[in-house]
Amino acid sequence: KKNYRIAVLPGDGIGPEIMEEAVKVLSLVAEREGVTFDYKYGRIGGIAIDTDGTPLPAETIAISKEADAVMLGAVGGPKWDQNPGHLRPEAGLLGIRKELGLFANIRPATMHSSMVEASSLKPEVVSGVDLIVVRELTGGIYFGEKKRYDGPNGEVAEDQCIYHEAEVERIVRVAFDVARKRQKRLVSVDKANVLESSRLWRKVTERVAADYPDVELSHMLVDACAMQLVRAPKQFDVIVTENMFGDILSDQAAMLTGSIGMLASASLAEGSFGLYEPVHGSAPDIAGQGIANPLATILSAAMMLRLSFGMDKAADDVERAVWSVLEAGHRTGDIAADRSKAIGTKEMGRLVCEAL
Amino acid sequence: KKNYRIAVLPGDGIGPEIMEEAVKVLSLVAEREGVTFDYKYGRIGGIAIDTDGTPLPAETIAISKEADAVMLGAVGGPKWDQNPGHLRPEAGLLGIRKELGLFANIRPATMHSSMVEASSLKPEVVSGVDLIVVRELTGGIYFGEKKRYDGPNGEVAEDQCIYHEAEVERIVRVAFDVARKRQKRLVSVDKANVLESSRLWRKVTERVAADYPDVELSHMLVDACAMQLVRAPKQFDVIVTENMFGDILSDQAAMLTGSIGMLASASLAEGSFGLYEPVHGSAPDIAGQGIANPLATILSAAMMLRLSFGMDKAADDVERAVWSVLEAGHRTGDIAADRSKAIGTKEMGRLVCEAL
Ligand SMILES: CC(C)[C@H](C(=O)O)[C@@H](O)C(=O)O
Ligand SMILES: CC(C)[C@H](C(=O)O)[C@@H](O)C(=O)O
Repeated sequence: KKNYRIAVLPGDGIGPEIMEEAVKVLSLVAEREGVTFDYKYGRIGGIAIDTDGTPLPAETIAISKEADAVMLGAVGGPKWDQNPGHLRPEAGLLGIRKELGLFANIRPATMHSSMVEASSLKPEVVSGVDLIVVRELTGGIYFGEKKRYDGPNGEVAEDQCIYHEAEVERIVRVAFDVARKRQKRLVSVDKANVLESSRLWRKVTERVAADYPDVELSHMLVDACAMQLVRAPKQFDVIVTENMFGDILSDQAAMLTGSIGMLASASLAEGSFGLYEPVHGSAPDIAGQGIANPLATILSAAMMLRLSFGMDKAADDVERAVWSVLEAGHRTGDIAADRSKAIGTKEMGRLVCEAL
Repeated sequence: KKNYRIAVLPGDGIGPEIMEEAVKVLSLVAEREGVTFDYKYGRIGGIAIDTDGTPLPAETIAISKEADAVMLGAVGGPKWDQNPGHLRPEAGLLGIRKELGLFANIRPATMHSSMVEASSLKPEVVSGVDLIVVRELTGGIYFGEKKRYDGPNGEVAEDQCIYHEAEVERIVRVAFDVARKRQKRLVSVDKANVLESSRLWRKVTERVAADYPDVELSHMLVDACAMQLVRAPKQFDVIVTENMFGDILSDQAAMLTGSIGMLASASLAEGSFGLYEPVHGSAPDIAGQGIANPLATILSAAMMLRLSFGMDKAADDVERAVWSVLEAGHRTGDIAADRSKAIGTKEMGRLVCEAL
């Protein structure tokens, strides 16, 4: 029997509840497919700050590095919001991305037909939206040198945005590969009329494009992209961009669908290793109530099956099970038109397992 | 008679056409209000590159500095897109902002009731949207040091994002002042969980807030703001943010209204000096055809009357004239539901003058 090692990092807030359902689905998949999944649990974020005094304990890094893939719930909560930077839950997230070399963040924003009503956009504008944002995740202004010092006019703060040619090249290649398997249209987003790092980005992208003559490449400025995502999101197939722009645009794109509780993401390293997590946060306000939507985490597990384990059929099955449950009209509170009919986290997990 | 000196920089593309209509409206205002406007024309952008070999000739800077306010059309076009950075039209725009100390960009995004249909968002989500983005315009990553050099893994590019306490303080004060005259709700947008410059931004904003106990201040992360602008734009009154985030969010906010051809902006220096320009670009594809929408430029002129000349009543009159023309059903092609009934640039200008 083939065995896969999965590091499971439930994190904070609703993280543990939604992860439980994803693990149930995964265990069912293992049974059906005749493989075994070996789960190792680790702490990250606020819970790790409380228990270990750091948002990313060495043990969590070790568990993750020994695994074939990582499933992450969510991190953060008001309890740790006033902590200094290195003792905040997000530091755990940024840390694990860097430690595991997770340079490629893949964020699909797909408008499933049964969910069109949930969007704040007109149905004719969003129905059929099916785009992927490929975001560079371990470079740029996130990881450049930071400075804080006293100047003649008070304090001064600096963040360095830095990109190396090789960093740009590897993320752009991932994006071209993704586009090649889809509609073959790639939009590279930058601010080349202002930023030097964007000019390098554009140059490298043009060079790599020569290896993908079958993919149509175009460039768009980040401000124009923010507009076009609102005006006509259907025009996009794959978007590739640097870390900071990707943070903003992928969240904007996610919200276009109106159902952020449904969106999965993958953060990939070189090779098949990846970390999978829902796009939504830890939702501390509803944590522990059993009402959180586990579907984004379940769909993240499906991405793991496909991208890290090569289990394409199993991934398709899980995704189909999710859609069929939605089509049957079942909804958790976050996506329910009528909240009084909303079902809970466990019930949603059970229905997906049943559909499977 | 009171006299105001106005530097008029029509720029490229549709710039000259739309500026002509704004000047007509201004001249009518002068007559009615018993003041005189003294117009001095200057070149900026592509036209200046062609004529003077630089996107921002010294003469244009001089004309602008001698004036009480500047009206700008738009810059840019495909003709100059392949030029090196310092010979591109945008360099003229960035240059004039820095030369004139225009640190405060004020961008209203107002959903006028007669235009709700133009939005890609559902009517119930956008009707009543009335927000202003206050964007820092002469600092941050736009004007920080840029580097390009060869490293061990190919080329490296760097952009420095730098903010001084005094720079943050003056823009935040402008935003508090704007909020005070409106619904008194200010959202400061940053990325304080990642950027040092954002942490300084947040600290200074908190300090300044003590002087504005009547204004409700909250902080929002830039990715969350991009989501909230899509999900529920009505929640915002005034948003204040740094240069790069402001570029993205103000364009996103503008597009929510669906009628970017209607949106005006002001870029203010200390004191009453300001530069006024439409939010839309130079639209080279329709330049010279007489079909461009002059309303954003006319509304920019109204902002100038109010903010630089203290002519509040005249500003109100111009804005009311614009709304009455729209309510009467007149539309240029960009905002017309039925394009066959669209009117031209000059006709729209004439109707506004008539309504005035
Ligand atoms: C929590 C934060 C540091 C993180 C980021 O900005 O990358 C988050 O917004 C995300 O997109 O995963
Ligand atoms: C043309 C460009 C340099 C400019 C900017 O990024 O500031 C434009 O997008 C704007 O918002 O006025």
